[in-house]
Amino acid sequence: MAKELTSRKENYSQWYNDLVTKAELAENSSVRGCMVIKPYGFAIWEKIRDALDKMFKDTGHVNAYFPMMIPKSFFSKEASHVEGFAKECAVVTHYRLKNDPSGKGVVVDEDAKLEEELVLRPTSETIIWNTYKNWIQSYRDLPILINQWANIVRWEMRTRLFLRTAEFLWQEGHTAHATREEALEETYRMIDVYGSFAENFMALPVIKGKKSVNERFAGAIDTFCIEALMQDGKALQSGTSHFLGQNFAKAFDVRFLNKEGKLDYVWATSWGVSTRLIGALIMAHSDDDGLILPPKLAPTHVVIIPIHKSAEQLAAISEKAVLIKKELEGRGLSVKYDNSDTQKPGWKFAQYELKGIPVRLAIGPRDLENNTVEIARRDTLEKKTIPVNGLAEQVITLLDDIQNNIYNKALDFRNKNTFRVDTWEEFKEIIETKGGFVSAHWDGTAETELKIKDETKATIRCIPIHNEREEGRCIYTGKPSGQRVLYGLAY
Amino acid sequence: MAKELTSRKENYSQWYNDLVTKAELAENSSVRGCMVIKPYGFAIWEKIRDALDKMFKDTGHVNAYFPMMIPKSFFSKEASHVEGFAKECAVVTHYRLKNDPSGKGVVVDEDAKLEEELVLRPTSETIIWNTYKNWIQSYRDLPILINQWANIVRWEMRTRLFLRTAEFLWQEGHTAHATREEALEETYRMIDVYGSFAENFMALPVIKGKKSVNERFAGAIDTFCIEALMQDGKALQSGTSHFLGQNFAKAFDVRFLNKEGKLDYVWATSWGVSTRLIGALIMAHSDDDGLILPPKLAPTHVVIIPIHKSAEQLAAISEKAVLIKKELEGRGLSVKYDNSDTQKPGWKFAQYELKGIPVRLAIGPRDLENNTVEIARRDTLEKKTIPVNGLAEQVITLLDDIQNNIYNKALDFRNKNTFRVDTWEEFKEIIETKGGFVSAHWDGTAETELKIKDETKATIRCIPIHNEREEGRCIYTGKPSGQRVLYGLAY
Repeated sequence: MAKELTSRKENYSQWYNDLVTKAELAENSSVRGCMVIKPYGFAIWEKIRDALDKMFKDTGHVNAYFPMMIPKSFFSKEASHVEGFAKECAVVTHYRLKNDPSGKGVVVDEDAKLEEELVLRPTSETIIWNTYKNWIQSYRDLPILINQWANIVRWEMRTRLFLRTAEFLWQEGHTAHATREEALEETYRMIDVYGSFAENFMALPVIKGKKSVNERFAGAIDTFCIEALMQDGKALQSGTSHFLGQNFAKAFDVRFLNKEGKLDYVWATSWGVSTRLIGALIMAHSDDDGLILPPKLAPTHVVIIPIHKSAEQLAAISEKAVLIKKELEGRGLSVKYDNSDTQKPGWKFAQYELKGIPVRLAIGPRDLENNTVEIARRDTLEKKTIPVNGLAEQVITLLDDIQNNIYNKALDFRNKNTFRVDTWEEFKEIIETKGGFVSAHWDGTAETELKIKDETKATIRCIPIHNEREEGRCIYTGKPSGQRVLYGLAY
Repeated sequence: MAKELTSRKENYSQWYNDLVTKAELAENSSVRGCMVIKPYGFAIWEKIRDALDKMFKDTGHVNAYFPMMIPKSFFSKEASHVEGFAKECAVVTHYRLKNDPSGKGVVVDEDAKLEEELVLRPTSETIIWNTYKNWIQSYRDLPILINQWANIVRWEMRTRLFLRTAEFLWQEGHTAHATREEALEETYRMIDVYGSFAENFMALPVIKGKKSVNERFAGAIDTFCIEALMQDGKALQSGTSHFLGQNFAKAFDVRFLNKEGKLDYVWATSWGVSTRLIGALIMAHSDDDGLILPPKLAPTHVVIIPIHKSAEQLAAISEKAVLIKKELEGRGLSVKYDNSDTQKPGWKFAQYELKGIPVRLAIGPRDLENNTVEIARRDTLEKKTIPVNGLAEQVITLLDDIQNNIYNKALDFRNKNTFRVDTWEEFKEIIETKGGFVSAHWDGTAETELKIKDETKATIRCIPIHNEREEGRCIYTGKPSGQRVLYGLAY
């Protein structure tokens, strides 16, 4: 490994930054707040994208593409949306540069000023509903189940690689329905898709829940989310699904003839996840040696490293390694054989631990003699020597085991860091000293939520779906409450 | 079919626009010059993207992502690049909107003016080479073989769906090499990849060639291209690969220690194709009934349509149709069974011809009795009745046949419309009356090329790679020439 990582204990935030850059996932660019997603980071994003895209298509969705530049006036059409989104955004005002009259470089050509400024999409509800208007006349045109993979710009003041950047990549689903029930069903379906993706692919246990009014998407009737707990005890919102009611249909005058022959406004949902998921993946599983990737999202499953002294040894090892590589690839695995001679095996071991390759095979002269390999798993760093015969089966079983182990470890962590709390003192103490999810009673008012946030920085992460009803008293005001909600410090 | 298309003969340009919108591939948006790529058009783009992406990866490339907003000053660093690209572009000048003091909508917040304006990428050489600068110290860091799938903005004055829009989707490869030879090799490799993709997937015969100086990419030493002939006799540039020499390395000061231990500037290539390929696909193959898609890029290969009078008949037909669908899907085909009752079979036939589904199966009561189906191919509109037994084999063979037939038809068209011309009179006449590719001698000067363009609008499409050497005289100036070049009217 080139350089050591800061340890999580020493400085969790620095550990994260070190890891993202040293594992070559991403780096800051020369453009304020914008990142470069490097090939290894992008390969993880491709795995995430492909898995999600399949889940979207399996649930009846299709992809399309809408303009990135949105007329400024579109944002004013939905009252709460403009408050939430039109403020911190990148604005295109001109469409031409010209040579600087001084002869140095180029300057904006003031003659090429746009009549109406264009905003780089911070989210696409407005441009999409302005388009749907022309697509929908009757209930027969519904539902529309469209997703878009796109880049998004939000002028964030404080940025962090993957977690919060001025430009990021995401997908945004925008669906149109004939009835309230159908739109609500879609909203729930997609939060279930996100939950299932997080648990089955990211090995990340998540709580599915509803947002409080304060945390709702600007323009939504209801926002559902998946919330995950990171190793520092902070919560990370990892995906949202919004029930938009008829808000955008009304803002863009999208009406249809329903089955009863009456004009009605169309019902809407929108839902999205972003490159932020990569941040969640890193912070949930990785350790002080580097990345730990769930095998289902690892760009490379297995790395093979030769241990040799002479060129003859290397040649003999390579012969075997290439056969093993081929066999594993035939089983659908992605395998790298690193026979480069610029670095020693120990350096390579550390390097691939840093990169989170789930399984490492090492082959030395003695292995050749015995027809064995040393197999090491990244999650626990355990290693053992096993016969080459039956290796593929063993690797596949091990990858499944790693995927499950990472999930169980994260689940165990979350269970140990979820606290049922009934007093304000206890609440403050846990938030300050331990973090984690805090399950507590709330009187249901925005006012109380904001006061708690002011005093502790903790926010209501969500009101879990299928929440148990339980009579109790708000930890802050003592007023009656019918259920517990989940608090936490959030990214 | 909802409405008839304008015929190609009547008005080719109108036919194209009709087809793009009526087949629901794309439409103009409310944002000047920007299109909405509708689900069916986007599904074709996904097929193109997936096939190309695999070819890029098979030739050793990886994907990454760079910021879309590029500091204005970056464009001034490479002298010819700024002339070619920095002029007609979208410029971000502010990062915030605020409520209009008059209480109506939002206005640009003049307090949030950027110190340096940001340009929406018209191409990414500048931001990428500014990044590579930090990645490359030694020859051991080379080559870098990166591709990016991204959206691009060029403020085009006259736009046409897919062919020329203010925002479009593309891929751009940007590679860095230790030697001139290696970079040149890469430049050729990628124009070969494009040529192979066009011929094998798009069923589009292309001429691979080198651009004249006038038509070269701004900042390149040499530009290679693939040129295809459309049915109206105009040429369409469908992909380019640029040998950039050390121009961008010099502009961004990207030097490396070579194997000899000396500092040298890095060698570069870039290459790209865009959603314009969809325009090429449409214009090369389609007819007055609608789209004709090569099976390898068709989102749906087969549509099955029931012909029935009663509900009982439909039920019996559906049973068989579902079995057939399943069998075909098991063979890797994408199949749609359209049992909707809102439209008659004749309407459906026309609709799927419009959409270019390569194979149509129709099943009526008599087919049920005889265990047959009617099979129709979109390219020739021929149909016949065949037994259900062995259907999958027949469909697969037919799809191959359609792919080949479309290619051969386009090749035949191009052969018939490529003219060897030796006099200026003949040249003018052919360009004016027939179009097509005109192979003629040229004295090699930019001046002559521009004069010919002024008088006829024809440009040199390319100097074919592996061009035959042949002594002759420039058709315009009579000066000596060592080879013929390919002229044409271009999109």
